[in-house]
Amino acid sequence: MSTERIPSASPSVSRLIDELNKLPGVGPKSAQRLAYYVIRLPAEEAHSLVEAIMAVKEKIIFCSVCQNMTDTDPCPICDDSRRDRSQICVVEEPLDVLALERTHCHRGLYHVLHGVISPMNGIGPEDLRMKELLPRLEDGLVQEVIIATNPTLEGEATAMYIQRQIANLKVKVTHLARGLPVGGDLEYADELTLSRAFRSRSEL
Amino acid sequence: MSTERIPSASPSVSRLIDELNKLPGVGPKSAQRLAYYVIRLPAEEAHSLVEAIMAVKEKIIFCSVCQNMTDTDPCPICDDSRRDRSQICVVEEPLDVLALERTHCHRGLYHVLHGVISPMNGIGPEDLRMKELLPRLEDGLVQEVIIATNPTLEGEATAMYIQRQIANLKVKVTHLARGLPVGGDLEYADELTLSRAFRSRSEL
Repeated sequence: MSTERIPSASPSVSRLIDELNKLPGVGPKSAQRLAYYVIRLPAEEAHSLVEAIMAVKEKIIFCSVCQNMTDTDPCPICDDSRRDRSQICVVEEPLDVLALERTHCHRGLYHVLHGVISPMNGIGPEDLRMKELLPRLEDGLVQEVIIATNPTLEGEATAMYIQRQIANLKVKVTHLARGLPVGGDLEYADELTLSRAFRSRSEL
Repeated sequence: MSTERIPSASPSVSRLIDELNKLPGVGPKSAQRLAYYVIRLPAEEAHSLVEAIMAVKEKIIFCSVCQNMTDTDPCPICDDSRRDRSQICVVEEPLDVLALERTHCHRGLYHVLHGVISPMNGIGPEDLRMKELLPRLEDGLVQEVIIATNPTLEGEATAMYIQRQIANLKVKVTHLARGLPVGGDLEYADELTLSRAFRSRSEL
């Protein structure tokens, strides 16, 4: 489907459909729908979208502390004096920071790896923002590193690697609990999740 | 969800997420995913997306014949001498033209209404590209008007209105068959579709 040309669409419409089709999660049908939506947008709204895209391309840099994407260095979180500097939560991606911020559970800082160790894809620790983590733990301020990589094979391997790297420092290393998702159905939980939930059962 | 601000995202990221969130079918989560995808795009690809958006805003006009959106007037279909000028297929939206072109069933021309008559939303025939249709039927070349509005209440009402408008011209007016969708399951068909399919049954 995605390579299909639509000869009857005008060149500039076809081109926009092609461009939108490249976005993740946007199939050929959605790309068409989006394209005609954009065509119908008032000029100032289309301009505002284009400006927003250009702004991120121009302004976004990596925070020199946590490696998250940011307009300013240090980023708003690292720069916030109200954040607890004794805890660093290590995540794979900037999106994970947003997800955790929404929970309001973590008042400490973050460290963004920008990926996971994945030998299959030829990604080793040196391809991630891993080496930037260790210097952050050396001043003795940090008491706990909360590893919040994804509960996948690669995420767990990355967590293990980080743990081994900082084992000789006097820092507590924790990771997020595994168990049944809230609102989920025991019957539909996969075996691994269920067995982890069973083994990590806690007293009521 | 959509009005929720993410204080920890940088201003330019937040702004892009907001802009993407306005697109149809793009919820707050997809907007975040898309935003970080755009941030990571190589500069030339982001530029290519921006250019494609600006190009449609600058170049797209309405075809003076069929009213479809186009870069050139007349549009590629109206301008194609191989198209059958005796048939005009009337559709609601430019996307419907693309959908019909993919079937390769219709070799005639189109007429795009850009909407349907919808008294509930205050949309009357004068708000559509309806008046542009009649002059196209006056030269006697057109033998058949195929009405391909959606099989909805409003689509049917619009079809009826068009039929009444051209009843006194010597033009055959047809509409697309209603029936069971191919690959669908009789058991899951709604009553209206099933009764239309039953009444329009044809000999094998």
